[in-house]
Amino acid sequence: MIDEKVKIVLLGCGNVGFHLGQALNALPQVELMQVFSRTRQKAQALAQLLDCKFATQINRVNPKADLYILAVHDSAIGLVARELAQHITGDALVVHTSGATPSDVLRKHFPHFGIFYPLQSFSIDKKPDFPSIPFCLDAHSEEAFLLLEDLAGSISTQVARIDDRQRAILHVAAVFVNNFTNYLYTVGADICAKENVPFDLLKPLINETAAKIQNKSPLSMQTGPAARGDASTLKRHSDFLKAKTDYQALYKMLTERIVELYRKNG
Amino acid sequence: MIDEKVKIVLLGCGNVGFHLGQALNALPQVELMQVFSRTRQKAQALAQLLDCKFATQINRVNPKADLYILAVHDSAIGLVARELAQHITGDALVVHTSGATPSDVLRKHFPHFGIFYPLQSFSIDKKPDFPSIPFCLDAHSEEAFLLLEDLAGSISTQVARIDDRQRAILHVAAVFVNNFTNYLYTVGADICAKENVPFDLLKPLINETAAKIQNKSPLSMQTGPAARGDASTLKRHSDFLKAKTDYQALYKMLTERIVELYRKNG
Repeated sequence: MIDEKVKIVLLGCGNVGFHLGQALNALPQVELMQVFSRTRQKAQALAQLLDCKFATQINRVNPKADLYILAVHDSAIGLVARELAQHITGDALVVHTSGATPSDVLRKHFPHFGIFYPLQSFSIDKKPDFPSIPFCLDAHSEEAFLLLEDLAGSISTQVARIDDRQRAILHVAAVFVNNFTNYLYTVGADICAKENVPFDLLKPLINETAAKIQNKSPLSMQTGPAARGDASTLKRHSDFLKAKTDYQALYKMLTERIVELYRKNG
Repeated sequence: MIDEKVKIVLLGCGNVGFHLGQALNALPQVELMQVFSRTRQKAQALAQLLDCKFATQINRVNPKADLYILAVHDSAIGLVARELAQHITGDALVVHTSGATPSDVLRKHFPHFGIFYPLQSFSIDKKPDFPSIPFCLDAHSEEAFLLLEDLAGSISTQVARIDDRQRAILHVAAVFVNNFTNYLYTVGADICAKENVPFDLLKPLINETAAKIQNKSPLSMQTGPAARGDASTLKRHSDFLKAKTDYQALYKMLTERIVELYRKNG
């Protein structure tokens, strides 16, 4: 398998497929045979970019690949897997790229299956820094794992074997540090916008808050009125937020959590 | 004032004073006369670094400066201002560097007062990137404002006139995007630690989440199960968090907010 090129079909041409396809296509050990999307425009555009074939129906997917990568929406993985299983032989390895989806969705259809999960939030118009993106891998067999490890290790400097349980935990944690954090940015932007204060002034602080925990524990980096028990500032903020009921409740809950955390750890 | 050097006394040798002192000291138009801290070790160390005098008692502060910068803790600004007012003449300009403290605390003691607030979170062991740090300024007079603007504009590329009301709003917003965000990082780290999953795997995602909103609105960048109404993932996460009561309530509140936000805006 190392001597010959790995023949890959990539299913899904969204944010993950778009960027992962380019990264895989650049590897000397890969022959990216075909991309698939039910949206013709997306399939065609990515196929053109990668100089490969494309399909818009599962029964037109090339059945002769070594590896099928399902980079479709979480909610579509089950259906695509079921259709694909009726179409390809049992020899191929089938993986998905989802952090949220258990491997069972593949296990029930394919003898050879695995996980190929780049732990990053992708945007179509922003080139990802692949060498720094952790790849969380798993596979049913050692041989399959080694293949995935070779591919991921050629794209990124960070590769980890992560089983279903660990991946589910990472995904919950990712919701807190990514989705919920972004929501807090939205709250900050909204508070500024309503009062005609430029939100841009807070962007360097947002960057620094993320940068600071790259080498230190977030627990040790906590600052602010709740962490230092500054009752008068907490009162002033709470009064200001009175008219914004949703934000006040959120402010209260997060403040209580931080106070509690520092009571335990401080 | 532009022809002669601006004589400055810096009060407070904590994180802000330590870095701001170095930035000011590097300016050709500044003569940093003296630093003050009640902690002799801190005062002495910074004075040595800046090659200037130091004081550990307010009545030993040089009364002949043009500008006194109070970079002491929020809770100490009132006391230091009161003591300083009994000691210096009314000609000097007195400013503080706090985001949370109204200017009244200076107004009642000094005819010439202002705000010199670098909007960033400083750590003693991390050199700040001053050119990118927004300076939020205010002053009682145009002349005083121009002096502060000249200094801040020589340190940073971002200078804004921000009154007390706007600064208070920025500070509330900063608590959401900095302190509360850091708490969410702590939650993520704690969830990972308890389950033996390396939190390091999430650090590139944390950086990217902050980087993404530097040029786009956070509202447009929201992803995740709550934003896309993915009930089965929300249910799975909620089940996982059942044993972690605090986190489950926080997960629930933040999820409800995001769902509500997308119902309104989506």
